[in-house]
Amino acid sequence: MNKIIETLKNHRSIRKFTNQPLTDYQIKEIIESAQCASTSSNVMAYTIIGVTDTTLKQDLYEISGHNHVKTSAHLLLFCADLHRIHQLEDNPDENPDYLNNLESTEQFMVSVIDATLASQNAAIAAESMGLGICYLGSLRNNIRKFNDLLHLPQHVIPLFGLAIGHPDHQPDIKPRLPMETIYHENTYKPFEDQKSYIQKYDETVSDYYASRSSNNKIDTWSNQMKRKFAIPTRMDVSSFVQEKQLNRK
Amino acid sequence: MNKIIETLKNHRSIRKFTNQPLTDYQIKEIIESAQCASTSSNVMAYTIIGVTDTTLKQDLYEISGHNHVKTSAHLLLFCADLHRIHQLEDNPDENPDYLNNLESTEQFMVSVIDATLASQNAAIAAESMGLGICYLGSLRNNIRKFNDLLHLPQHVIPLFGLAIGHPDHQPDIKPRLPMETIYHENTYKPFEDQKSYIQKYDETVSDYYASRSSNNKIDTWSNQMKRKFAIPTRMDVSSFVQEKQLNRK
Repeated sequence: MNKIIETLKNHRSIRKFTNQPLTDYQIKEIIESAQCASTSSNVMAYTIIGVTDTTLKQDLYEISGHNHVKTSAHLLLFCADLHRIHQLEDNPDENPDYLNNLESTEQFMVSVIDATLASQNAAIAAESMGLGICYLGSLRNNIRKFNDLLHLPQHVIPLFGLAIGHPDHQPDIKPRLPMETIYHENTYKPFEDQKSYIQKYDETVSDYYASRSSNNKIDTWSNQMKRKFAIPTRMDVSSFVQEKQLNRK
Repeated sequence: MNKIIETLKNHRSIRKFTNQPLTDYQIKEIIESAQCASTSSNVMAYTIIGVTDTTLKQDLYEISGHNHVKTSAHLLLFCADLHRIHQLEDNPDENPDYLNNLESTEQFMVSVIDATLASQNAAIAAESMGLGICYLGSLRNNIRKFNDLLHLPQHVIPLFGLAIGHPDHQPDIKPRLPMETIYHENTYKPFEDQKSYIQKYDETVSDYYASRSSNNKIDTWSNQMKRKFAIPTRMDVSSFVQEKQLNRK
């Protein structure tokens, strides 16, 4: 196993950070690395917003509910962005083909994928420098407020945050579903054939929760998922995205 | 700059591969690395399908039109997958809350983000071993055929491919938009304030295309984007995704 794969496999989300700030050099390395990720047809359909303003951090914390929004040394917000492409055209609103394309589900997917490729490079760059990271989908708990706080124009939506800082704890690495569940060959493996591996994983997760160094509990993955999906959450994301003129054609 | 960031910044898409196959060890390292990426609430809403069947490779090549679909040493296909979660529940179709959640735009985004985080870890793991990669969004040129070839059930859609192999060329690294365009602080930077950087980038891209080692041309990024978006493409993705019972609530 080489050093890079070792770093990838050593990932755990960090939710407690020391007070040590990031250097400008570290931030530059993280953003430059993000920008080097692949992007669909070089569209670069994303924007990263770095948060340094403490009032803004507090407002974002109130949406997320997670303390590490406030305590992270640096907070990056990743946005799917087709506004730039919209503005390049002289009269986009008089060009129905241009608009149809821009507002299609295909381009929405492209922008989400582009932003995510960049974010994962940012995450790895940070971890390579000994920093810890935690993704924050919880900022979508109030996606309209998340959007408004950043003054995002039409054709831009906020996706998630990435909290970065010097780790102040070292949680255990969370086990994942067995490879046999996630990795198939040539054709989709029917759920029936995934079942035994999921059962095995439920046992692994149950042992992990019972024995991990903090926050012990009795639970399985299957039960967690069933409980989670039984409660509709963030159902307003759909109308919000369409109001931002994305994902609607 | 550390070794990992050096690898991230050294990325270029590889479209020509030698005949050398990947070892089972390399494939295992790539998939295990993919699985170590962050995932929203541990949902792991994705599946990776590895292609070894030459007939399937040929069929996928016909969708994509890119030779490296056939010539790659290994081809991974990344799918957004909420079928697993659907199947965990005993009677999902009699549980409207469960279905509403699963079929929401929010969960569609989660599944696309999860798949993409995993894919970027796979890409970096491959590159860390000296392999080259190329993302293949072109498989969405016929997303229904892409789907049918893999026999994907409801609540699963194919997103893109990742061609992997031993590089047989070393293309120049493509310049990206200046950091000032992509990275904003605390608030979205209006397009007017991005404009001068985009103009600068157009000059950079124009020089790059005029002087690069192969496939020289005269073009700018802005003109490429305007031409690209003037022609609606993959407009069937929207109805396809909704037929697969995703992104519809």
